Amino acid sequence: MSPLELIAGGAEAGTLYGIGVGPGDVRYLTLRAAGLIRSVDVLACFAKEGRESCARSVAAPLIEPGREELTLYYPVTTEAPVEDAAYTSPMRDFYEASAERLAALLRAGRSVGLMGEGDPFFYGSFMHMWRRLERDFPVEIVPGVIGISGCAAKANAPLTWGDDVLTVLPGTLDEATLARRLADTDAAAIMKVGRNLAKVRRAVAQAGLLDRAIYVERGTMPGERVAPLADVDAAKAPYFSMILIPGNGRRI
Amino acid sequence: MSPLELIAGGAEAGTLYGIGVGPGDVRYLTLRAAGLIRSVDVLACFAKEGRESCARSVAAPLIEPGREELTLYYPVTTEAPVEDAAYTSPMRDFYEASAERLAALLRAGRSVGLMGEGDPFFYGSFMHMWRRLERDFPVEIVPGVIGISGCAAKANAPLTWGDDVLTVLPGTLDEATLARRLADTDAAAIMKVGRNLAKVRRAVAQAGLLDRAIYVERGTMPGERVAPLADVDAAKAPYFSMILIPGNGRRI
Repeated sequence: MSPLELIAGGAEAGTLYGIGVGPGDVRYLTLRAAGLIRSVDVLACFAKEGRESCARSVAAPLIEPGREELTLYYPVTTEAPVEDAAYTSPMRDFYEASAERLAALLRAGRSVGLMGEGDPFFYGSFMHMWRRLERDFPVEIVPGVIGISGCAAKANAPLTWGDDVLTVLPGTLDEATLARRLADTDAAAIMKVGRNLAKVRRAVAQAGLLDRAIYVERGTMPGERVAPLADVDAAKAPYFSMILIPGNGRRI
Repeated sequence: MSPLELIAGGAEAGTLYGIGVGPGDVRYLTLRAAGLIRSVDVLACFAKEGRESCARSVAAPLIEPGREELTLYYPVTTEAPVEDAAYTSPMRDFYEASAERLAALLRAGRSVGLMGEGDPFFYGSFMHMWRRLERDFPVEIVPGVIGISGCAAKANAPLTWGDDVLTVLPGTLDEATLARRLADTDAAAIMKVGRNLAKVRRAVAQAGLLDRAIYVERGTMPGERVAPLADVDAAKAPYFSMILIPGNGRRI
């Protein structure tokens, strides 16, 4: 084994691994994540019906042909509002059934790696499995590079300096709340931009930050795009998009 | 070369690499970071006089004997308050001189990897070199796993769910500001705890969050300690310590 593989280590029987695959470029997986992807008995991911999982496509260069894989297909995703029972009820059933499928593998002594974009404990869908399984099975969390770090690197924009306060905001918040919070922070990252793009842009302008805001689409992935938010006037953005407002903190 | 090394890739002549080594465990370096640490002409880091660099000690298992290294020793660090000219003036001279040393190597066509803890653009000292050199030399930012992600993994504490707002606060802020911001967020991470521990703890209590706050010391490193903040009554914490307040967002 090469030095990198020796350091990465392998998987233990009957253990669930929450594997963060990072922001999108396979080179930004951790050694531990790469080692586990190559050694777990079953490689699992969530995906939209009819599509390849985003996390799986990030890790694809590390996945050898013939690996046992389990894709858990979401019943609904963005079709219904998240507060709505039309979203939560089928999603809850889906997470329950998914956890049961993983539990059956773990009970049989198999190691399972569930991959997700970014970091598992940072808005990750892995958490829905973690809370259902962590009392009954050994679980290892493999932290990943968050999308914010990947996007800041590609935007060539240092995010936080010195004593900057950073606020991470979901674009799903209402416009007034976004504007209020943006006006009261040194640096910000707005996630879940997607269909909220026009609203988020108005909130950024209202907070007087349009000249500092950077739009990053598919950061670290093929088709990456970086632009001043002021130049982006679309109503919608793809799933992998975010807005960064770099801090102005202490430069020495 | 092994598959991991092939994916990681190598260094280009005359290029400066800002390499995030992640939270502390060598397994949490990215493939790209590991590949560069093994291939740059000169491996650089910042360190306190008389001590090994923290970032270097994280990456040590990847560093083969006989590599050319450059350690840039800080003239002062925590001895003087950061607002004070007694701190900023020698630090500015030091950063200027350090940038000049790196520039001389780059001009000679050598590739240089400057390692730092966590992520280079997230409160990283690399930014002080970036702003002095990025106009004149090719620079590649290698994002890293932030300490917050490493600590959340080790605390077994999912940090942000659903539409949670996350606030990242430096413990250097005054008590009233800390308390106000903590009372107005869903999830929080407080960095730079160190000598601010007692003040931070009072601010957390004032915000009514003492029962949810987790103290993590040396997360992912040897000597790691995780404890409820309520059980920690020391006046000071080591450099590698932080406080996490996990969000209570949407569980489906």
